Parts: sequence; C-alpha cells; structure tokens
Amino acid sequence: MEQADIAVTDIAVIGGSAAGLTAAITARRHYPDQSILLVRKEEQVLIPCGIPYIFGTVGAPEKNLIPDAVLEKHDIELLITEAESLDTDERVLQTKAGEIAYERLILATGSKPAMPPIPGIDLEGVFTVVKDVDYLHDLQRRLETAHDVVVIGGGFIGIEFGDEINKTGGKNVSIVEMMPHCLMLAYDEEFCITMEEVLESRGVNVSAPARVESIVGNGRVERVELADGTSIDADLVIVGVGAVANVDLAREAGLEIGQTGGIHVDRTMKTSADHVFACGDCAEKVSFFGGKPSRLKLASIASTEARIAGANLFGVKRENVGTVGVWSTAVGDHALATAGLTESMAEDLGYDVVSVAIEGVNRHPGLMPGGAKTKVKMVFERNSAVALGGQVMSDSTAGEIINAISACVQNRMTAEQIAMFQIGTHPALTASPIAYHVVNAAEMALAEMRK
Amino acid sequence: MEQADIAVTDIAVIGGSAAGLTAAITARRHYPDQSILLVRKEEQVLIPCGIPYIFGTVGAPEKNLIPDAVLEKHDIELLITEAESLDTDERVLQTKAGEIAYERLILATGSKPAMPPIPGIDLEGVFTVVKDVDYLHDLQRRLETAHDVVVIGGGFIGIEFGDEINKTGGKNVSIVEMMPHCLMLAYDEEFCITMEEVLESRGVNVSAPARVESIVGNGRVERVELADGTSIDADLVIVGVGAVANVDLAREAGLEIGQTGGIHVDRTMKTSADHVFACGDCAEKVSFFGGKPSRLKLASIASTEARIAGANLFGVKRENVGTVGVWSTAVGDHALATAGLTESMAEDLGYDVVSVAIEGVNRHPGLMPGGAKTKVKMVFERNSAVALGGQVMSDSTAGEIINAISACVQNRMTAEQIAMFQIGTHPALTASPIAYHVVNAAEMALAEMRK
Repeated sequence: MEQADIAVTDIAVIGGSAAGLTAAITARRHYPDQSILLVRKEEQVLIPCGIPYIFGTVGAPEKNLIPDAVLEKHDIELLITEAESLDTDERVLQTKAGEIAYERLILATGSKPAMPPIPGIDLEGVFTVVKDVDYLHDLQRRLETAHDVVVIGGGFIGIEFGDEINKTGGKNVSIVEMMPHCLMLAYDEEFCITMEEVLESRGVNVSAPARVESIVGNGRVERVELADGTSIDADLVIVGVGAVANVDLAREAGLEIGQTGGIHVDRTMKTSADHVFACGDCAEKVSFFGGKPSRLKLASIASTEARIAGANLFGVKRENVGTVGVWSTAVGDHALATAGLTESMAEDLGYDVVSVAIEGVNRHPGLMPGGAKTKVKMVFERNSAVALGGQVMSDSTAGEIINAISACVQNRMTAEQIAMFQIGTHPALTASPIAYHVVNAAEMALAEMRK
Repeated sequence: MEQADIAVTDIAVIGGSAAGLTAAITARRHYPDQSILLVRKEEQVLIPCGIPYIFGTVGAPEKNLIPDAVLEKHDIELLITEAESLDTDERVLQTKAGEIAYERLILATGSKPAMPPIPGIDLEGVFTVVKDVDYLHDLQRRLETAHDVVVIGGGFIGIEFGDEINKTGGKNVSIVEMMPHCLMLAYDEEFCITMEEVLESRGVNVSAPARVESIVGNGRVERVELADGTSIDADLVIVGVGAVANVDLAREAGLEIGQTGGIHVDRTMKTSADHVFACGDCAEKVSFFGGKPSRLKLASIASTEARIAGANLFGVKRENVGTVGVWSTAVGDHALATAGLTESMAEDLGYDVVSVAIEGVNRHPGLMPGGAKTKVKMVFERNSAVALGGQVMSDSTAGEIINAISACVQNRMTAEQIAMFQIGTHPALTASPIAYHVVNAAEMALAEMRK
C-alpha cells in the first residue's frame, strides 16, 4: 500500500505476530480473492516464545525473527505504522500513515508485560519482556556487564530467561517466585519441584515462595528486597510475571472488554462491534473446561484463534471450543509439557479426579541409546472417566507426546478409549507398547475407578 | 504352578510376548481375584521389535529381553512348557508338563517367519527372524565372520537388520526388495525413496525392484541370484519378508481360521470357541478403514488387542474398532512413522483422496540447536474431509508426532477439526505454532477441497 491518505482494503489485520500473521494467512486461504492488509508498528517481528533464547542459545534478536517473506507468499500487503483510532460504524481505521477503509477488521494487538506495583520497578536496570528488537538489544548490552541478575516471576518465561542468562556463565542468577514453587500455574507440584532441582543443578538460584517487597537502588537497581526481610543483590532485574491484553485501541473504539481484560469475543471470535474480530493475547478467552474466563496467553492459542477468526470473516465457519491450554518448556535436556487441567487445577474447579503417573524410559529395551526418563501423569474425571489433562516430563519428545495427549483431551476421550488407543512404538523412538505411558495410565485409572 | 499332572486356573494365557504378557496384565487389572497362569515355551522372551538392534546397537540377545519381574509384580504364575493340544469343550489345555484346566483361555501364540518358496532357502547360512535367543546367538556368531550379507525383504525389519549389520563395519550389506522401493507397504513412494537414499548414504546397498530367483551354494550359501540374471555374493542371507500367524494349536482344536490365516475373532477378541480369546500376531485382523481383513502384525497392535481380550474374559467391556496401523522405523538419525492409510493405500481402497505434505524444521527459530528437517503428509477423504492417515519423517520426535496423528485418525477428526487442533509448541521442542505441520496440512487440504 502506498502511504496515501485513504487506503481501501477488504480485510485489515492489526498486529503481525502469531495471531495477526496466522489470521492473515488463514484469511488468504479462505478468501483467495480479497485484498488483505496487515498493519503493524514493528519494523521486525520477534518470534515471541523464542525471546528468552536470544540471551543464550540464539545470540541476538535478529536471529529470532518471523520472516516477512511469508506475507508476500500469501499476497498480504504490509503497512508498518501505528493504529491510532477506529471507527467501527464507518469501518475506518486511523493510522499515523493515514486512513484505512476496510470491510472486515481483525484485532491482533497482542499483550504487554504485566507490571506489578512494586516500589522501585521504574529504577534503571529493571527490564520487562517487551517484544521489541531495540529494547531487547538494550537488555542484551546490559547483560554483558551485569553480574547479579534477578528474575521476578518463575513461570515458564521466568525460568527460561533465568536458565539462558545463567548459561552464558559468570553470573549469579536468581529467580524469585511468589507461589510455593515455580511453574505452579501449569504443572502439579511434583513436576515443579523436579524442574526447580534441574534449575538449581545448573546453577540457577530459586527463591520460592518469596514475595518481592521492593526493588532498591540509587537511581539504578542495587538489590531486591523480599517480604521475609532478606535481600538479593541485583545489578539487573527482569520482571516476567505475565502479560496483559493490549486493548487501548479497542476500548477507545467502544468495544466490549471481558472480565480478564481482553477484548470480548464470541465463539466465532467476533467482537461486540460489527465486522470486527479479535484473536490472540488481546482477545478474552474462556476455558475448554467449564467455560470460565481464562487468563492463558500463548502463541499456540493465538494461532488457533487466528485460524478461527480468519476463516469466519465473511460467514461463520468455525467455533472456538475454548482454551485447552497446551504448552511446554525446556531447561537443558529436560522438557516439561502440559495439556488441559492439572490435578490441582481440576480439583480447584470442583472435579472429582483420578490421576495416575507412569514413569519409565522412552526406549525399549531401556538401554537403547538416547533414552530419557519419562514421566506421564494423566488426569481423569471419576464419573465419566473423561480425560481432563496430562503432563509429561521427558527429553524433547515431551513436546509431541503432549500433542497426542492434547488430541485425547480435545476429543474428550475416556480412559476406556485411551486404554484402547492405538499407538505406534519403536525401540529407538518410544516406550514399549506393553508399558506405553499414556495408555497404561488410563488402564490404571480405570482400575482405581473400579475400586 | 507345580508341574503336576492336572493344574487348575481361572485364566490361562498361551504366549509371553507383547500380546500374552499384556493380556495377562490386563486380566489382572480387570479381575483382581482370579488366578492367572501364563504358559510359554521360551525360557527368555525377546522384545520383538528390538531384535534387529541386537546386531548393532544393543549387542546381545540377553540385552533385549522382556523382564519376568513384571509377571510377579502382577501376581501372574509362569509355566515354561509347550502347549500340545486343546479341548475347548472340556476347557482343558494339554501341555508337555501336564493338563491345565481353565475357565477362560487367551491364545497369544504369535507368528513365525514367512518362508518364501525360493530354491536354496534351506542352505546353510540362510537365516530368518526367529524370536529365539539361541537361534539369534547362532546368527550373531555367524555374522562375526560373514562378509557379504544379503537381506531378502525391504520392509522395516529388513532395513533395520541391514542398517544395524552394516553399522558393525567391514561388511558388504545388500537389501533385496521385490516392490519398486523398500517400505512401500507402509509409506508413500516419496518417503521410501528418501529412506533408500539414507540407507545408501550409510553404505547399505539397495536393490529394488528385484526378485530373488534362487539362493545358490554348495551346501552353504554362496550367492543370491536375481530374476534379471544378475547375482549378489552372499555368505549369509537373512530372510525378512513378513510373518505368518502361528495357529497350529488353534486349528487342531477346531477353531475357525480367518482369510489371512489368523485365528478368527469377533470384535471382542473372542474366537469361534466358547471361553477362548485370541490376540496379537496369531489373531485375524480387520482394518479400521472399511473393515477388510488386514495382514498387519505389530507389537503395538498386539498390545491393544491384548487390552481388549484381557478385559473381556468374563463379560464384554471393550470392542476392537479395527487396526489403524501405526508404526515407525529409524535409520541413524532419520525416523519415519506412519498412521492409518497412505495416499496410495487410500486410493487403492477407493477413497477420493486429498493429501498435503508440509516441510519445515522442528524448531523455531529454525536455527535453534537440535532441529531436524520434518516432513508431515496428511491424507484426507475429499467428501467428508475425515483424516485417513499421516506420515512423518523427522528425528526421534517422529515417533510421537505420529501418535498425535493417530489420535486424530482414531477419532475420525475432519480437516476442519484438525485445523483448529490446539497444539502445544516450544522453540526448543517443536515447529512454530504458525507453521505447525499437522494443522497447516489440514488447512491446505481444506483450501484444496474448496477449489
């Protein structure tokens, strides 16, 4: 698009990360003849989940970008500018580069880091996880000379940042988590404890439960003070306590905002305004389990929502069943993955739960090279025996085992069905068919239910 | 059990491999108070799929055994003897160690190597894949001094044997396959060609299509002659062209035998005789797709059937939906996995097929360490858009990606549902959520169907 005063497009998408890009590609697949314009403010778009890896494994923000070639390939026009306001009656988007008249609009404006009201959070040397190349360059430069690094927040972003920064060597890295253990919003306690042990064995200090009272320094951060009166030296602090939906544009345009702060959408991903859809971190979510509002924000969720929004622009084709919540994290050779509800989440929601954990090596015989200890925990509802979730700790295969479990959960398979689940096995690739974890966990849960 | 003249048991299982063992364990889980006796002829039971790996990676048959401890753990009695005859009216099994009176019987007598009627197949130096420790010891001894090794049959057993023997070094290993390419009973041609290239790059010779005319030698094998007039020197030949159900006991007892030569069973795994069930390689199978007889024989299928047979002994709890066919193979770092129908199988069965292949790296960004080129091909029926199958070529994660695909197939998910499949992704573990292969293949198949 020329940076003209008024541009016209069939489909406009605001945002170029997992949600915006996937929505635009999906729109192209479903509406081959419509013009599509993607508006974003970033010159370059970072792969969101790859950000922690910039500071160790990957080495630079420029090596962690979503390539723009995919836009061209799908005949999607790109305009790099900032959206300023939106008139949903007139179907006009006002940007710094001029007005854009659209037929259909997708808001994929993402999220920004949550900033807890901690005194001293505005000191120099306190960073958050901003998805911006220049900002992350600045952080990377500061890390070169930093020695005492404190990460506030032990969720998956926090532990990945902590481990990656620690990997570079010569630093004293501490993670401070408010809950009893790191990762407790995603995994049952036993997995969290194992992962903390892994982190500590790699030299990362973990303080949990520990509440940050204040960040202290004379202009520049010097230490983090905890509620128990102790303090941790810090010349650099990274705050990774979650993200809040970026809804300024939508709110000012009068769109309804949901209970958790996201743009309200129905199951078709339509907002309260005609012809306007939203997806990704900026959109309000409900859980697959019971339909309550969900605060989960993940690139994988964003891309699923984008596939719904992009398909529905000119007629309803797809409905969102709600967020299952499937994700993984990795520290060194240890990967941890979760799908659906943990045992403790399920109990909190009121389910009568039967859960079974199976441990074994993911090879048969176990001495086949490359084998890793693998623990799978499956969570079922007692009355219906429907699978509510699963957790996996293993090597890199955990990232795909969890997708098999996710398929079981999304299809609301029962323990009976999973006990007869026809899996493929191989000595060099998986656990044995006799002892296959997901299936045996279902069998053992059934035995427990019969008691 | 004492080796007395008459023993009495509630449940008798004949066979101690994947089917028999899993059936006995399942029976224990479902019938905690019944006595269970497992009768087998082998002192030690080999892990069936691990057999090729004895000759390279694992090193000895004794390192590839199913441990008997699992029997004790589940309170299953073991009797090592040979079954001789069966009276299903009287419910008595005659063995070399005496009579066994049973309430319910499970036949898990497995399979034996198929022996093609090739002249010279009885020469010294010609081996098959017999699941017997002593036999495999003999093969291993002979391999120590062998130089020219010919493997007849390029299915997964054949290529795994060929590659493992070649890995030990100093040998000239050739695989002779009758079909146009190796592995064509399991994968579409493009995957087979890639796998042949992998084998050849590792120094294994592949002759395909090539039909063995005769095995020639003076008492002892000297060469293999092909139908095109050429010949391959051989001081050792391994015949790996499949397996035939071991049904002698069942046939002599008057049980019905199915079209492919297995013991006929209904969907509950019951045979034509009262109180007698069968599962595993010895049992007749039908396909999940259309219900036609299926010749597939895999340990993973055996264990699923065993979980059905073991549960149904004293009342029907489970039904077999038919064999999906999910399996994997690996050569070096390359793993290849399949679930359900390939494109060519589906076409042969009369389906109107839409198939899409996606290639990419299983990391994001792609330069994350440990990434492997990953190709996923999904096969859908055009009218219903139901997933019929998938194939994966990747690193070891292929073995679990295929289980996610298998879950999609078994739940008869449509391309629409798979396009909205909520997957989990991680930079260090999987492809990106925007480009995730299984989901994008479904989206692209839908676009193709709309054309």
